[in-house]
Amino acid sequence: MEIQPLVRELKVKNDSKIVLLVADGLGGLPLEPGGPTELEAAKTPNLDTLARIGTLGSSIPILPGITPGSGPGHLGLFGYDPLKYPIGRGALEATGVGFKVGPKDVAVRCNFVTLDSAGRITDRRAGRIPSEESGPLAIKLREIKIPGVEVFVEPVKEHRFCVIFRDLQAGTPGLGGNVADTDPQKTGVPPLDPAPHDAGSQKTAEVARQFVAQAQKLLKGQPKANGLTLRGFANAPALPSYEDVYGLKAAAIAVYPMCKGLAQLVGMELVGKPARLAEEIDVLEKAWNDYDFFFLHFKYTDSRGEDGNFAEKVKMIEQFDAIVPRVTALKPTVLAVTGDHSTPAKMKSHSWHAVPVLIAGQNVRTDACQSFGETECLKGGLGHFQAMYLMPLLLAHADRLGKFGA
Amino acid sequence: MEIQPLVRELKVKNDSKIVLLVADGLGGLPLEPGGPTELEAAKTPNLDTLARIGTLGSSIPILPGITPGSGPGHLGLFGYDPLKYPIGRGALEATGVGFKVGPKDVAVRCNFVTLDSAGRITDRRAGRIPSEESGPLAIKLREIKIPGVEVFVEPVKEHRFCVIFRDLQAGTPGLGGNVADTDPQKTGVPPLDPAPHDAGSQKTAEVARQFVAQAQKLLKGQPKANGLTLRGFANAPALPSYEDVYGLKAAAIAVYPMCKGLAQLVGMELVGKPARLAEEIDVLEKAWNDYDFFFLHFKYTDSRGEDGNFAEKVKMIEQFDAIVPRVTALKPTVLAVTGDHSTPAKMKSHSWHAVPVLIAGQNVRTDACQSFGETECLKGGLGHFQAMYLMPLLLAHADRLGKFGA
Repeated sequence: MEIQPLVRELKVKNDSKIVLLVADGLGGLPLEPGGPTELEAAKTPNLDTLARIGTLGSSIPILPGITPGSGPGHLGLFGYDPLKYPIGRGALEATGVGFKVGPKDVAVRCNFVTLDSAGRITDRRAGRIPSEESGPLAIKLREIKIPGVEVFVEPVKEHRFCVIFRDLQAGTPGLGGNVADTDPQKTGVPPLDPAPHDAGSQKTAEVARQFVAQAQKLLKGQPKANGLTLRGFANAPALPSYEDVYGLKAAAIAVYPMCKGLAQLVGMELVGKPARLAEEIDVLEKAWNDYDFFFLHFKYTDSRGEDGNFAEKVKMIEQFDAIVPRVTALKPTVLAVTGDHSTPAKMKSHSWHAVPVLIAGQNVRTDACQSFGETECLKGGLGHFQAMYLMPLLLAHADRLGKFGA
Repeated sequence: MEIQPLVRELKVKNDSKIVLLVADGLGGLPLEPGGPTELEAAKTPNLDTLARIGTLGSSIPILPGITPGSGPGHLGLFGYDPLKYPIGRGALEATGVGFKVGPKDVAVRCNFVTLDSAGRITDRRAGRIPSEESGPLAIKLREIKIPGVEVFVEPVKEHRFCVIFRDLQAGTPGLGGNVADTDPQKTGVPPLDPAPHDAGSQKTAEVARQFVAQAQKLLKGQPKANGLTLRGFANAPALPSYEDVYGLKAAAIAVYPMCKGLAQLVGMELVGKPARLAEEIDVLEKAWNDYDFFFLHFKYTDSRGEDGNFAEKVKMIEQFDAIVPRVTALKPTVLAVTGDHSTPAKMKSHSWHAVPVLIAGQNVRTDACQSFGETECLKGGLGHFQAMYLMPLLLAHADRLGKFGA
């Protein structure tokens, strides 16, 4: 039996408040063997205090050795088995620009391409057209009208944009996501016709055809981006909601579009429009009485790790540490601090390494840990565990889970 | 693949003796952050000696964050996935009073109720009639005779008792457990008719009807308990036996009825009738030559935890420690000490926290642990593991598991 159906069955409501602080890509690596990681090098007096009164552990984002993208990394932290809930490429792309893909939507990744006069592709990426040129073109495509369907077009980056088709007819099952890519994967041939793979996707294919036809007209005469291909048709993953599984009214406080989108997919409410970390805490304080659960996301630890900038990642962690007193001042019942994965500056990329976890609050069994860091976490009371078990642990500490069996 | 089919396949018989000492609810919490747990506060020289020559670890009863009842907690220790073998309410109630529910039995939880002259329920719990009054009434119901069926009636507590119907006809599949509760969940209406939900439960429903009819006659004129409702019809869980899975002739030495019942459900033999811990060791010594495996259960660590009495739980742990030399004097091949779950006095209830585990005996890889306690266990060689893996570990240490693959 999986954990989520069990948690749904055992959940109990009460007045507790749970805060999950996520520093993206928190885990790191030492630059030299035996040296400190970014988190260990950072001065984190506030997190160290929490480490002494709380309990630590190491979170495995997916499975040992598996490096997650931001989507699966956060899904795990939210308590959903990332291997059970794959998010289709189109839905992930739309989510990544902060678009909340609904149950009657199909999302599609699109490429601008260059076509010759006979309609054959000469460049599958439209010369990697810069975002400043492609963005306005994507927005121009918002003029497209298709009967019975609402069309959303969202710029992404360079030659990439995404389209979401929403079925406006009530009572129908919506638009199926089982349509083949129109990218022929080579030049010298025209884009393929969008071919449906099942009956429920026939209407989607027809809608896609109309979209392409109207788009070609709107793009006519463009020197680079005068055509398009469609890829990764996908419906939203059918994720049970936080309210349904955990009985939690949950708020998401984030700056990064992908996180905003994912949090909404699991039924969190996006609160406020913060642009900086301090503003995220302002939002947290204001929303304090209105929610049971708060997911607060800090992006820049990951960004500096991706840059390969150890010293700047250390600084970001210190900024993150500095806001902790404002969170503890709210007296959450349970406070957890972790990351969605590791992003060691040394690797300039996400990695599979276990992520430090800290839980403070009621019912915590303290351990011998004196500071918050990867090596110290190895002495922690939580041991190594898969990220998807963090939510049950937080609920348990908040007295929100009943007993299994008598 | 699950572990049990693998263990069944790899099991080897030999002359080794395995002892599993279970102190119920052993795990605890510090009263103050950084303070000792009950086990850490207790003086346990004998367990500490075992910790030095053995190996320690932390057992997760079910999954992270999930608090088990006594039933699932023990099933895990016995090596059965508690999520795969849920025990129906009726079977659990019968087991809880020490009744061994057999393969041709259906067990039912019953309430005495108060009926008015028209047969309508006026009190669903018969005024919470005290056990001294309800016990004899339950025993009076043993007079009920139903053709082809043996009827067992067991008092439980106050208005609660349980009934087990055993099919006496050879060759039939027995009585199905899929019958609806007769408790209408409200007063002012009569109890419901026992309705079968499948063909295999039609005879059960008919038997239940006859039982109710005869019971009403026997209870006629009672001021409070003149009627009854039936709930939680359940067959015994189909648990493979210790002999079958492990090749072990197993003895259970326990005082607590629930443990006695559960141990019998997995095919252990209940040995002796001890009333105190010292008597349990007497039984162990006497039975030493007759079994391969001994499950010895000590209840009062849990009881004092449930009472919220830290100091008394410490004392119970010290009593438990004091009997250890009598066990080691028997020179078991492998000796394990653990609990079925944590029962922190601070929480006055079962909890999800990991449970200390100690394994001593042959083939043990010793670790750096110097005493038996929750924090020390975090340094242990066994790490964190699900309780259901303890049995394979014990068999392995006893050379009772062959190699998997060549």
